[in-house]
This record gives sequence, C-alpha cells and structure tokens, in this order.
Amino acid sequence: MIDFKKAEAVVDTYMRAMTEGNLEQVVDLYADEAILEDPVGTDVLNGKAAITEFYKGALQAKIVLERIGQVRLASNELTFPFRCEYNGPDGPVAIEIIDHFILNEDHKIISMRAFWGENNTKALTT
Amino acid sequence: MIDFKKAEAVVDTYMRAMTEGNLEQVVDLYADEAILEDPVGTDVLNGKAAITEFYKGALQAKIVLERIGQVRLASNELTFPFRCEYNGPDGPVAIEIIDHFILNEDHKIISMRAFWGENNTKALTT
Repeated sequence: MIDFKKAEAVVDTYMRAMTEGNLEQVVDLYADEAILEDPVGTDVLNGKAAITEFYKGALQAKIVLERIGQVRLASNELTFPFRCEYNGPDGPVAIEIIDHFILNEDHKIISMRAFWGENNTKALTT
Repeated sequence: MIDFKKAEAVVDTYMRAMTEGNLEQVVDLYADEAILEDPVGTDVLNGKAAITEFYKGALQAKIVLERIGQVRLASNELTFPFRCEYNGPDGPVAIEIIDHFILNEDHKIISMRAFWGENNTKALTT
C-alpha cells in the first residue's frame, strides 16, 4: 500500500530537487528499472542510465517547478499539476504540466509520463 | 492528429453534461469499445453498456463538475484537474480529481481513468 504522505513527499522532493538542479536527488527517486515518457507520445526511455541522461539534459537550463494543485493518489498511481518555468533559447517560458507517476512498494518511481504540449506553453515577458 | 480545441471541447462538454445530469450526452462522448477505470485501481469497465450503467449510477446524485486548470494534451492523450461536488449520503462532499482520457481520431474517448482517493475528498459544511 502506498502512503499518501510519502507519495506527496516524492512529488515535492522532485519539485525541489529539479529546482535546485540536484541531478543525483532527482534520479534517486526512480527505481532501477523505471521508464520515462516526456512528453507523452515521444520515445519511452528505459532504465536509470537513460533517465539520468534525460535529466542531465533537462537541468542544463535553470528550471523552477511548482506544484499548483493536490497530488491525486489512487492505488499505487498518482497525478499532479505543476508549473515549469525555465530559460529557453528564446527567453523565459512557462509550461503547465500534469505528471503521472507509478510507484513501487518502496515509493520509488517505476513509471513517469508527462502530459503537456504547445497549448500549455507560453513565453514569459521579462 | 488530435485538435486541441476539440479535445478541450470534449472535456468541457463532459463537465457540463455531468452537471446537467445528461446521461445520453455523457455516454455519447465515448467510443463503443471504450474502457473506464474510476477510481484507478478498481475494476476496469469494458464497453459502452457497462459505461452507461456506471454513469446511470453516478448521476443518481446531483453532481457539479468544474475544471480547475488547463487541459494538458500530448499526442492523443489528455489530462485535466477538476472539482466534483455532490450530495452524498452524509451530506455535501467535494473531491479534487484528475482525469486521463485517450481519444480516437474521431475525438471520442476510448479510455478514461480517474485519479482520486480519500485524501482528495472532503466534507463540505453547509
């Protein structure tokens, strides 16, 4: 059984570790055999090495993640809405995303899928 | 390819038809071979007859659904946060939910999974 407070802690640790650029802490949230699809519809990354490479790339930019609603937990799966701000090549951008995590019994992420698209992305005026 | 405006219209029609108790309009959003899992972790309902029975039961109570954030569309899948208020046996209740729809090329729902649990549910004082 997944504990709600622990599931919420996984999410909030993810938000904070990404914002602090702490690659090791982000990757430590994942199980060894995890899969990752970000955004949904692109290639599914398989295993911790591929996932580490993905986050190494993502954290090249300064990123700020902020949860903007409740973590919804059902069985061992959860979803939550958040806002992602980062400095893109054309200036600061904000994306509204919903992530879907599946957790194992150790509260490690075994599947991550990120829902967002161009309609959720907007340039921020500086 | 899924059109964002059409996908958003599916969601908002769902919100409105549920709130109006319009069973026919709700069920019409689904493809014949759709599956439904609400909440995630419970039995998966298969096909329009089972889905119709599910909504017939749900609409016994007066329900108000309100979307409370963007529809996130990625490929042919979408998620969105919403609030569900209804009059339960012990009084009015509010649940914060995230639904996940997969759409076919006709923008009909072929899969619906609802993410919520007891930690997303609270009694409303009257």
